[in-house]
Amino acid sequence: MLILIDQDGVLADFERGFHRAWMASGHPYPAIDLAERRQFRVRDDYPESCQPAVDAIYTAEGFYRDLPPIAGAIDALRAMLAEGIDLRICTSPLNHYRYCVPEKYQWVEQHLGREFVARMIVTKDKTIVHGDILIDDNPQIHGSRTPDWQHVLFDQPYNRHREGPRMSWANWRDVLLKP
Amino acid sequence: MLILIDQDGVLADFERGFHRAWMASGHPYPAIDLAERRQFRVRDDYPESCQPAVDAIYTAEGFYRDLPPIAGAIDALRAMLAEGIDLRICTSPLNHYRYCVPEKYQWVEQHLGREFVARMIVTKDKTIVHGDILIDDNPQIHGSRTPDWQHVLFDQPYNRHREGPRMSWANWRDVLLKP
Repeated sequence: MLILIDQDGVLADFERGFHRAWMASGHPYPAIDLAERRQFRVRDDYPESCQPAVDAIYTAEGFYRDLPPIAGAIDALRAMLAEGIDLRICTSPLNHYRYCVPEKYQWVEQHLGREFVARMIVTKDKTIVHGDILIDDNPQIHGSRTPDWQHVLFDQPYNRHREGPRMSWANWRDVLLKP
Repeated sequence: MLILIDQDGVLADFERGFHRAWMASGHPYPAIDLAERRQFRVRDDYPESCQPAVDAIYTAEGFYRDLPPIAGAIDALRAMLAEGIDLRICTSPLNHYRYCVPEKYQWVEQHLGREFVARMIVTKDKTIVHGDILIDDNPQIHGSRTPDWQHVLFDQPYNRHREGPRMSWANWRDVLLKP
């Protein structure tokens, strides 16, 4: 079994990083709590007038590097490998790749170790990558072909409108390994 | 038809960049001309005592960014797209990813344009990527599965021992589009 695992919103806590940075920025618009987030892309939950400030946060140097891990993610990946499940981290970079791309690598090295970096696949089009399962918080994954993998949604407040298999790091074994 | 195209040694002239940088470094060991290169990895053609100096060249800031394009490569990619051939740049990063990874993106943006960056796939394992053809100068592509794609070797002096379909940017139409 080969499992593809998205990075932001599944391993790295983009939401917590963004919320923290928005608070620290001192912007007058109040930070939106995670429980109130409704759109996959954080910029779509903030008003039009905030968008340059929103974009400035995640395109800044250090944003991706300093994201905290999502609770349970690191232990779950280590457990998967220990149980003989092959896995890759399959991540789409920002168009503004300058800090985002190398910092995604740095993040994996910091939290999962240098060996793990070889498991990274950076691609805008995930449908082109082979796998049995893709764990991703994005409710709508577009690409150039019909994927081999089954999409298992990683549970987040902003994707609860979407039907289909869903998991978190608290129940991954039940969802992924059920007979 | 989906064609995957390797970056270094196919689009970006790693060999010319390395040769130039080795000459400029003033190292007493003479630079090996491209025609005399025999191993896929340049470090394997230099003696053991040179290896720290060899590694220092391609892990330096700016090395990947400043590689010249291989003659004909940019025009060929533009022609492929104009003729309705879908393509992706499929590249394996150094373990020492710090400059290599973002500079591969910069290189594509500089030489092929910002839109083209969305066609990049960065992965150590190319067998996991779907495609009909992979154009690659590496004579031995290892990975976790039997690939979908057929490997067409991009002709270089260091891969002439290997049998099988082979092309250059002078004859890509004859090799790839033959009936």
